[in-house]
Amino acid sequence: MNTSPVIGIDVGGTTVKGVVADRDGLIIAEVRRPTPSPDPTGALVVDAVAEVVAALDADPTAPVGVVVPGIVDEMHGKAVYSANLGWSDVPLARMLSERLGRRVGFGHDVRAGALAEARWGAASGASGIIAFVPIGTGIAAAFLIDGRPVVGGGWAGEIGQVRLSTGPHAGARVEEIASATGIARRAGLADARVVAERVASGDPALRIVWDETIEVLADVLAGLTANLAPETIVLGGGVALAGDTLTSPLAAALDARLGPLRRPDLRTAMLGDRAAALGAALIATGSSGSSSSASGPNASDSR
Amino acid sequence: MNTSPVIGIDVGGTTVKGVVADRDGLIIAEVRRPTPSPDPTGALVVDAVAEVVAALDADPTAPVGVVVPGIVDEMHGKAVYSANLGWSDVPLARMLSERLGRRVGFGHDVRAGALAEARWGAASGASGIIAFVPIGTGIAAAFLIDGRPVVGGGWAGEIGQVRLSTGPHAGARVEEIASATGIARRAGLADARVVAERVASGDPALRIVWDETIEVLADVLAGLTANLAPETIVLGGGVALAGDTLTSPLAAALDARLGPLRRPDLRTAMLGDRAAALGAALIATGSSGSSSSASGPNASDSR
Repeated sequence: MNTSPVIGIDVGGTTVKGVVADRDGLIIAEVRRPTPSPDPTGALVVDAVAEVVAALDADPTAPVGVVVPGIVDEMHGKAVYSANLGWSDVPLARMLSERLGRRVGFGHDVRAGALAEARWGAASGASGIIAFVPIGTGIAAAFLIDGRPVVGGGWAGEIGQVRLSTGPHAGARVEEIASATGIARRAGLADARVVAERVASGDPALRIVWDETIEVLADVLAGLTANLAPETIVLGGGVALAGDTLTSPLAAALDARLGPLRRPDLRTAMLGDRAAALGAALIATGSSGSSSSASGPNASDSR
Repeated sequence: MNTSPVIGIDVGGTTVKGVVADRDGLIIAEVRRPTPSPDPTGALVVDAVAEVVAALDADPTAPVGVVVPGIVDEMHGKAVYSANLGWSDVPLARMLSERLGRRVGFGHDVRAGALAEARWGAASGASGIIAFVPIGTGIAAAFLIDGRPVVGGGWAGEIGQVRLSTGPHAGARVEEIASATGIARRAGLADARVVAERVASGDPALRIVWDETIEVLADVLAGLTANLAPETIVLGGGVALAGDTLTSPLAAALDARLGPLRRPDLRTAMLGDRAAALGAALIATGSSGSSSSASGPNASDSR
């Protein structure tokens, strides 16, 4: 079994995070650079990735995996859409392989985070379907079935985009209310973490903001559970750092909605903001169930 | 290629439907018997299936597939739970194989219906993930990814069981409001089909009942679409017989909820109440991506 290090790179909305990891997920080196954004052609991001790879100073034959946000079609190696980066059908997998002069694994940040949490993090050893739900600047989900991500042409798991039809926030999209950004905005504070801290210490006005957040998240997770029946849901992103302040009322609200259905095990993520880069490293090794730019059309990709 | 006939049997809540079909899904013979219910041990249902097989008078070497309702774990050949039939962890696959003296394919009625609609019905030729959503006495869903059903230990697709948290029917389960049974009850009529007909001809009071149904269904399908991103949703069950009266407002309500997300193609089912029996025939041939009692644990089953 190959145990040599692997490079994983996560192109985030604001930061490009690069890691060199061993095959046990231990991080040997790490580099961060600002993301050039917007970058409609992808050329600046490709430059930034090349610079991060150089700065990581790893074995030049080390496999490289790169993951990006937005709508990503692994099967065709394309960044289909990203509002932040201004992408529309950019063939990033090919561009990265050409620039780096080697095979580059290519994938989606949330699905990569799910792979890493399943291999080395909160869902390590979990059986059944696994859901990873980062609640940060936005809200999304990724699902692993038999270890393989559900892709749906890049559109699967976009649970933050649905408009609420009823309740106090009817008309708003889920992530406008329940993301870290949405929580902070509704609380009139700079950071959702401060909201969670004040809720934990009994602030009654912020309790209302928090309770409404819980209600929206519980509706979303109840639908997710009814559809896919995950045995484990890993909550990630900045909001999951609230720990019990989040999971305890959320588990109760979910329980109230699930009637006779099987309850998922709610956990908080363990790999923090390195999950996607570690998942990129998994994709680089081809051991992820995800595709790489070199593999071409592959029936497994839409799982 | 084997073209000999196959037996498919759908154990419904009220009727056991048996068909002999050829490998193109054409029905050669059909038999129906009342379902013995409740039947906590499964023994009476096994008798009824054996009687239907005998009455179908097919080649005694024809493969047999049997599908049942409720929570079904194909991987372990078990009827995990059915409120109607009174089942709890009944090893039906083994019981059926022993009784019929041959290998019996075993599966779930809704997932079988999805397989049949994908092979021979409304989703024939469709690409991407396919969702089948029967709206009848209850509401459920089945998902095919690369042609294989998502199982989730038997719990995937139980979208009718979730409790609504907001709106005019907060506290009710989805299927209490939006199933054929729920629609008829709320309208004070015997049959949801009559409700749909009167709505189509302009009855204002029933329009309200119908509109509320559409709102609930649109919420459910928006969540389903955000999670799994199906390219095609096939609506089945008695309520789908309303055709345009259902799909036209439902597509509009779904559109309003999906924001930037990709829209699924909404279609109505083509195989009527024979979809599950035809799907059972597909399972019998082992060409379905589903499991059979003889195959034992199989990593593909939870897809």
